[in-house]
Amino acid sequence: MKKVVAGIDIGGTITKYGIVDMEGKLCSEGSVSTTTYKDVEKYLDKLTGAIKSLLDESSEELELAGIGVGAPNANYYSGSIEYAPNLNWQGVIPLASHLNARFDVPVAITNDANAAAMGEMMYGDARNMRDFIVITLGTGLGSGIVVNGELVYGNDGFAGELGHVNVVNDGRHCGCGGRGCLETYVSATGIKRTVYELLARRTEESELRKIPFDELSSENISKSADRGDRIAIKAFEMTGRILGKCLADVVALFSPEAIFLLGGLSKAGDHIFIPTREYMEKNLMKIFRGKVKILPSGLGNTNAAIIGAAGLIRRELVDSGEL
Amino acid sequence: MKKVVAGIDIGGTITKYGIVDMEGKLCSEGSVSTTTYKDVEKYLDKLTGAIKSLLDESSEELELAGIGVGAPNANYYSGSIEYAPNLNWQGVIPLASHLNARFDVPVAITNDANAAAMGEMMYGDARNMRDFIVITLGTGLGSGIVVNGELVYGNDGFAGELGHVNVVNDGRHCGCGGRGCLETYVSATGIKRTVYELLARRTEESELRKIPFDELSSENISKSADRGDRIAIKAFEMTGRILGKCLADVVALFSPEAIFLLGGLSKAGDHIFIPTREYMEKNLMKIFRGKVKILPSGLGNTNAAIIGAAGLIRRELVDSGEL
Repeated sequence: MKKVVAGIDIGGTITKYGIVDMEGKLCSEGSVSTTTYKDVEKYLDKLTGAIKSLLDESSEELELAGIGVGAPNANYYSGSIEYAPNLNWQGVIPLASHLNARFDVPVAITNDANAAAMGEMMYGDARNMRDFIVITLGTGLGSGIVVNGELVYGNDGFAGELGHVNVVNDGRHCGCGGRGCLETYVSATGIKRTVYELLARRTEESELRKIPFDELSSENISKSADRGDRIAIKAFEMTGRILGKCLADVVALFSPEAIFLLGGLSKAGDHIFIPTREYMEKNLMKIFRGKVKILPSGLGNTNAAIIGAAGLIRRELVDSGEL
Repeated sequence: MKKVVAGIDIGGTITKYGIVDMEGKLCSEGSVSTTTYKDVEKYLDKLTGAIKSLLDESSEELELAGIGVGAPNANYYSGSIEYAPNLNWQGVIPLASHLNARFDVPVAITNDANAAAMGEMMYGDARNMRDFIVITLGTGLGSGIVVNGELVYGNDGFAGELGHVNVVNDGRHCGCGGRGCLETYVSATGIKRTVYELLARRTEESELRKIPFDELSSENISKSADRGDRIAIKAFEMTGRILGKCLADVVALFSPEAIFLLGGLSKAGDHIFIPTREYMEKNLMKIFRGKVKILPSGLGNTNAAIIGAAGLIRRELVDSGEL
């Protein structure tokens, strides 16, 4: 029997899951919708079935040793998702115990960006780094912060909410109830809002004028930018400016060796990396200039969070002597 | 021979130093001006003489085991003060080796706020905390951040520059070359600038109209506020609002158990603590509300940084087996 762990990456829109071996290799994977199920039990039934199918369909006989989960507002200490603004399920969801009841194996959960940071540290391009930050640019903006080689959970398990740092006074309304939070500008959703603001404010022709808000995505904004669409290019420039300026402040606090950008919006490559680097450098204190790398994931764009979630439970099992 | 260490707290205006015993008790202390000496060697000659006098004048025979220093922009890794905007000495000052040459004992240096955080952790009110932040409100604003029971130095030793996080776009000019940095609003100097801005903008009578800028201090602004001076009260309220709002962002990143406010401006007590608490709570994400304490130093206002610097070298000596 080959021992494996399952990694689950719960995003605001899609939940990805996979079976990961002891070397951090993703053996098989799948996805289910996060938004379809208003009831968390029904969502977990669907997810449980899908993961059990993956295990059954394998050509080798597999033994599931544990499950790691990355999810928005997930609390490592309590094992719960608590008050996640981007999910259907309100209040406190005891996700670890729900999954433990379904699989009867140890479960560790943390926020999706912490899981991605764990993946980068165990198997990716942060293997030799003690101080770095992972930022996930999906439906929202998450951050996983590593200091002295350890994830920053904070006193209550909720540290790393960079997405809800204020960047514009009385700015855009945010799912958290606040206004002007970084993720309302810098995320797959944030850049859509920026495109619509630009389309309202400016007069240039743009192919984006043909796409309704609900069909717009960071992917089609990126493709428009590839084709030279000026609204799309301007939207990336504004997004990178806000992110870069905010990262200059983050560097002043943490002085990381590198900042990794992951998730949907980061797939736009140079469109987002170039202005982010430029505006971060421009706003950095002199002592930090030219020192901090802004990098894509070393695990590929799609699987870092699954592999990271798997890494989280693997480290737990090794630390507790079960692996 | 009784073993002791020396703690040195280099502030933008005054350098305080003291002899500290192995229990963290300050046995004797003194101070010299930081600003009088344009040449760092002359400054260190003066300081060295003063510390040697303290040792000689003791009734017991003392053996100096090491020296700990807290100073602006001090780098723990390199032992240097590097590009400190609030000091006379420009460029890179190899302070640890200068002091080692004069005393022939081990020297450890870090920024003044990190030293204060070390003091709070070893001897003060953070003894049972793993995640907390110390903010020093002196000539500038420094921060010492503790995560998982360890100081955050970052990749290059310069982490914790909360004073240079941007809080106002194109705001006040800062000694670091930037604009709108937190310390230009929230520090002993920052509140003076706020008072002058208010005196320029508003028409109320105020006893502060009689004091020239160079004679104004957070202490006399605090006394005016005690007497009900509306400009002074308004200045504290504005200072606490900017600090509280910024701390809400800091909590989102670190989720600390407590934030300690130290240094000159913190002596104003309720004038600064009440609006800071109020505006932090108002701006916190829901998940953090009511959880984070804002506290004065547990070591008294005057000596936390000296005792902290002493604690820094003491921990070094213990770790290296010399104590």
